[in-house]
Amino acid sequence: MTDPATRTDGTPGLRTGRRPGNPDTRSRILTAARKLFAQNGFDKTSVRSVASGAGVDSALVHHYFGTKRQLFLASVDIPVDPTKVIAPVLDTPPDEIGSRLARAVFSVWESPHKPAVVAAFRSAMAGNEPTLIRTFLLEVVLRDLGPRVDEPPGTGMLRMQLVASQMAGVLVTRYILEIEPLASLPVDDLVAIVAPTLQRYLTGDLPV
Amino acid sequence: MTDPATRTDGTPGLRTGRRPGNPDTRSRILTAARKLFAQNGFDKTSVRSVASGAGVDSALVHHYFGTKRQLFLASVDIPVDPTKVIAPVLDTPPDEIGSRLARAVFSVWESPHKPAVVAAFRSAMAGNEPTLIRTFLLEVVLRDLGPRVDEPPGTGMLRMQLVASQMAGVLVTRYILEIEPLASLPVDDLVAIVAPTLQRYLTGDLPV
Repeated sequence: MTDPATRTDGTPGLRTGRRPGNPDTRSRILTAARKLFAQNGFDKTSVRSVASGAGVDSALVHHYFGTKRQLFLASVDIPVDPTKVIAPVLDTPPDEIGSRLARAVFSVWESPHKPAVVAAFRSAMAGNEPTLIRTFLLEVVLRDLGPRVDEPPGTGMLRMQLVASQMAGVLVTRYILEIEPLASLPVDDLVAIVAPTLQRYLTGDLPV
Repeated sequence: MTDPATRTDGTPGLRTGRRPGNPDTRSRILTAARKLFAQNGFDKTSVRSVASGAGVDSALVHHYFGTKRQLFLASVDIPVDPTKVIAPVLDTPPDEIGSRLARAVFSVWESPHKPAVVAAFRSAMAGNEPTLIRTFLLEVVLRDLGPRVDEPPGTGMLRMQLVASQMAGVLVTRYILEIEPLASLPVDDLVAIVAPTLQRYLTGDLPV
C-alpha cells in the first residue's frame, strides 16, 4: 500500500486520493483539529497535538489527511489548496498581479467547488469558527502573496486584506445574495472590472 | 396622544419614539411582514396584506411601525434608514460621490448601530431570509442612487452592485473577521482607500 502523504506523482491529496479511513476516527481527528486550529492558529498547532486531542497516533493523522496544511484545509472544509491557486500569480509581473489573481480566484469559485466555497464562507459568517477562517485568511491564503507586494515595507498585509475585502464582497453579492445583473455577469467582464481595484490595492499608493 | 407616524418634528420614528405596543401583537406583525416581504419583495407587499397576515387592523401596523418602509426596516432589523444616510450623497457632484458615499456608510457602521448592522448581515449570510436582504439591497438601498449613476443608460444597477460588493467586503473583513491591520485602520484612511474604488464603479468605464 502506498502512503498517500508521499505519493510519487506529487499530486495534492486533499480528499480525493486519500484513504477515507474509519469515519469515527476521521471525525474525531477533524473535531480536535478544528478546536486546536481555532484556539492556537495554524503555526502554533502541531499534528502531534491534534493526534493527542483525538486520542490517536500522529501517523494516523498523516495517513488520513496528509500534511498539516492539508489537515487544516480539510478542517475548514475548503476543497482547494489556495497556495496552488495562487502559485501562478507569484511569477507574474507586478503590474499584472491584479488581473491574474482575479482570474485565478474566480476560476475556483466558478468551478464545481463553488458550493463548498460558499458553504464554508456562510458558516464562517454565521459565527461558527470565525477564528478558523481568520487563520485561513491570514496564515494560509495571504501569507504567500503578502511579502510580494510589501512596498513600501510594512504595507503587504493591509494590501492583501484590501484585496480580500473586494473578493469577499463579490462572493457575497454574486454567489450568496445572487443579485442581478452582477450574478450573471460573464467572468471575463467581472475580471476586467475587479482587476484594476485589486491592482491599485496591491501596488498603488495607500494613504497610510 | 400624538400618532408617531405623523409627528410634527419630522424625525424618523423607527424604533425609538414609536410606541412599543403589545409585544405579542408587534411580534405577530413582524413575523407576517418578514414572510410577505421575503416572498413578494418590498413593492408588492402592502401594509394591508401584512395586517391581514397578522390578524390585525392596518391602522395598528401603522401605529406601531409607521410607514411601510419603516415596517420593512424593522423587519430586517436595520436600525437606520439607508435613504436618510444616502440623502446627502444625492446632491454631491458626480466625481465626489465615491468619497461621500464611503463616508456616509462608514459613519453608520462606526456608530453605536454597528452591532445591529453586523448581526443583520451575519443572519443574511447564514441563509436566514436571503430574499429579505436581497430586497433590502435592490429595492431599498440601491434604488435611490442607481438612476443617478445610470450612464451609459442601463449600467446604474450594476454600478451600485459593484459598490455594494466592495462595501460588503469591508464589512466582512473589518467588522466580522476583524483581521488586522484592516480592522483598526482609522476611518479617514479607509475612506481614502475605498473611495477611488467606489468612484470608478460609479462613474468609470465598465467593460459591459
